[in-house]
Amino acid sequence: MKYLTNPRQIEAQSMKIIEGLAKNLPADPLARAVVKRIIHTTGDPQYAELVLFSGGALEAGQKALRQGANIITDVNLVKTGISAARLNTLGGQIFCYLSHPEVVKRAQLTGKTRAMTAMEYAETHLANSIVAIGNAPTALFRLLEIMEEKPQLRPALIVGTPVGFVGASESKELLAKMPYPFITVQGNKGGSMVAASIINALLYSLS
Amino acid sequence: MKYLTNPRQIEAQSMKIIEGLAKNLPADPLARAVVKRIIHTTGDPQYAELVLFSGGALEAGQKALRQGANIITDVNLVKTGISAARLNTLGGQIFCYLSHPEVVKRAQLTGKTRAMTAMEYAETHLANSIVAIGNAPTALFRLLEIMEEKPQLRPALIVGTPVGFVGASESKELLAKMPYPFITVQGNKGGSMVAASIINALLYSLS
Repeated sequence: MKYLTNPRQIEAQSMKIIEGLAKNLPADPLARAVVKRIIHTTGDPQYAELVLFSGGALEAGQKALRQGANIITDVNLVKTGISAARLNTLGGQIFCYLSHPEVVKRAQLTGKTRAMTAMEYAETHLANSIVAIGNAPTALFRLLEIMEEKPQLRPALIVGTPVGFVGASESKELLAKMPYPFITVQGNKGGSMVAASIINALLYSLS
Repeated sequence: MKYLTNPRQIEAQSMKIIEGLAKNLPADPLARAVVKRIIHTTGDPQYAELVLFSGGALEAGQKALRQGANIITDVNLVKTGISAARLNTLGGQIFCYLSHPEVVKRAQLTGKTRAMTAMEYAETHLANSIVAIGNAPTALFRLLEIMEEKPQLRPALIVGTPVGFVGASESKELLAKMPYPFITVQGNKGGSMVAASIINALLYSLS
């Protein structure tokens, strides 16, 4: 069987097919690039109808990345999915505290999820960072609680795309009501790769 | 806002909701567990209609894992997504050669994708292992070519769920015609997390 083997050709053709397949792609070029990258990653054109951006969120994300903002993720898969090389060139690093011994210990003591505890542990690093939550609704809920208590910790951008049937859509609806720069997805869909692809689309837009 | 914070409760409730939401879940308990885990990971009940198993694939996968089979993945995200702790208990390890210096060098010399080259590099380890390809259609195409040339290298199970619009569905259709034990997904959807969740469902079924 004949098949394309040139990665650049494959990606270019994929993006062209997505242009044809996905209805309702955003007109704004950067928003369009983000949505197309999600569809490229998931194979699911329905994302064109599900992604929500707060006004100025994309520009806030770009600006933060250019200034070397760090990224805090809820799970290691989001961290692994982000193009670290590009981020590091800009001065940023990625942190995930989910398996930090202190987080594991505190979660055992309090009975909270590790994902919630990791957000609490990240507290002093939240300001001006980009928070990317791709998996755990409890991480997103806890982050929003922390920001209600301490608005001065406001991240530059919250990418919140937790996935699933228990709390995920509720946590994303809550995010979408907040006065913070956010990118999210309506409904049950989402996941670590969706969060990572949003960050990657922002990173690629800067090169 | 009130939200569930007990991981076991969250997972149990999620699986219960999926039982209610997803039409066409397989009747076989192990196939059902695999499909439900994919839906749990992606938030997308449509997978109930997309997952294909060759006859005996699940039992072949279980048997191989019990015997300490290694897993070869196309990309690091599949590797990161698999519950390595459970696998290691059984004696297996996960290998991904995509960034191996030798693979990077050979791919530059030949112009093939690194994903293809990584499958070639894994050749001597294919027999009786489980191959999990979640991202790159070229890896799956190349694996099937290698097995046509050298049938004695037959893995115990091929999990092939590459994602996207260029070659992904074609590579999976080709896999679904093969006389090897396979688990795959029809159409453009799939991805690293889908491949990892199939392996994880098999691992969880053994505990």
